[in-house]
Amino acid sequence: MDFIGELLGYVAGICTAIVFLPQSVQTIKTKDVSGLSFGTYVIYCIGMLCWIAYGIYLHSIQMMLFNTISLVFAAIILYIIIKNKYGRE
Amino acid sequence: MDFIGELLGYVAGICTAIVFLPQSVQTIKTKDVSGLSFGTYVIYCIGMLCWIAYGIYLHSIQMMLFNTISLVFAAIILYIIIKNKYGRE
Repeated sequence: MDFIGELLGYVAGICTAIVFLPQSVQTIKTKDVSGLSFGTYVIYCIGMLCWIAYGIYLHSIQMMLFNTISLVFAAIILYIIIKNKYGRE
Repeated sequence: MDFIGELLGYVAGICTAIVFLPQSVQTIKTKDVSGLSFGTYVIYCIGMLCWIAYGIYLHSIQMMLFNTISLVFAAIILYIIIKNKYGRE
């Protein structure tokens, strides 16, 4: 069970890291942010910052790494949402 | 630091739990899934299932609880995406 347990943790971490990769590629390509929730991406970025800080507290390199990658993708999407929804004259 | 560390973990967990609440409310109301990435929600749901299983492995009630709530919201959005994008004649 130890191996399966640790494997689960890694698969979960990798999913967290890459979860917004397809969304950011799609949003960069289409610039279609009409269906995207501003609140969700704000909460996600705050959550990721907390997870990274919690990873520093727990001295967990994996938590810092996976959550930082995830934060980058979510921040790209949040930036495009802000630019498109609120940046227009 | 112990209190701040544990607090960070709770704030991070609560953010994870509620992150897709605004998105699911918006998607239920507007049914606008044009900007939403199918891949992102599939990866998110797989990731949450792994986090829940990892929480069971670590005997962490918080991980099971927060990630199950998050999975419910993400699954609602994924269901609407599938229904709207792939369910039409």
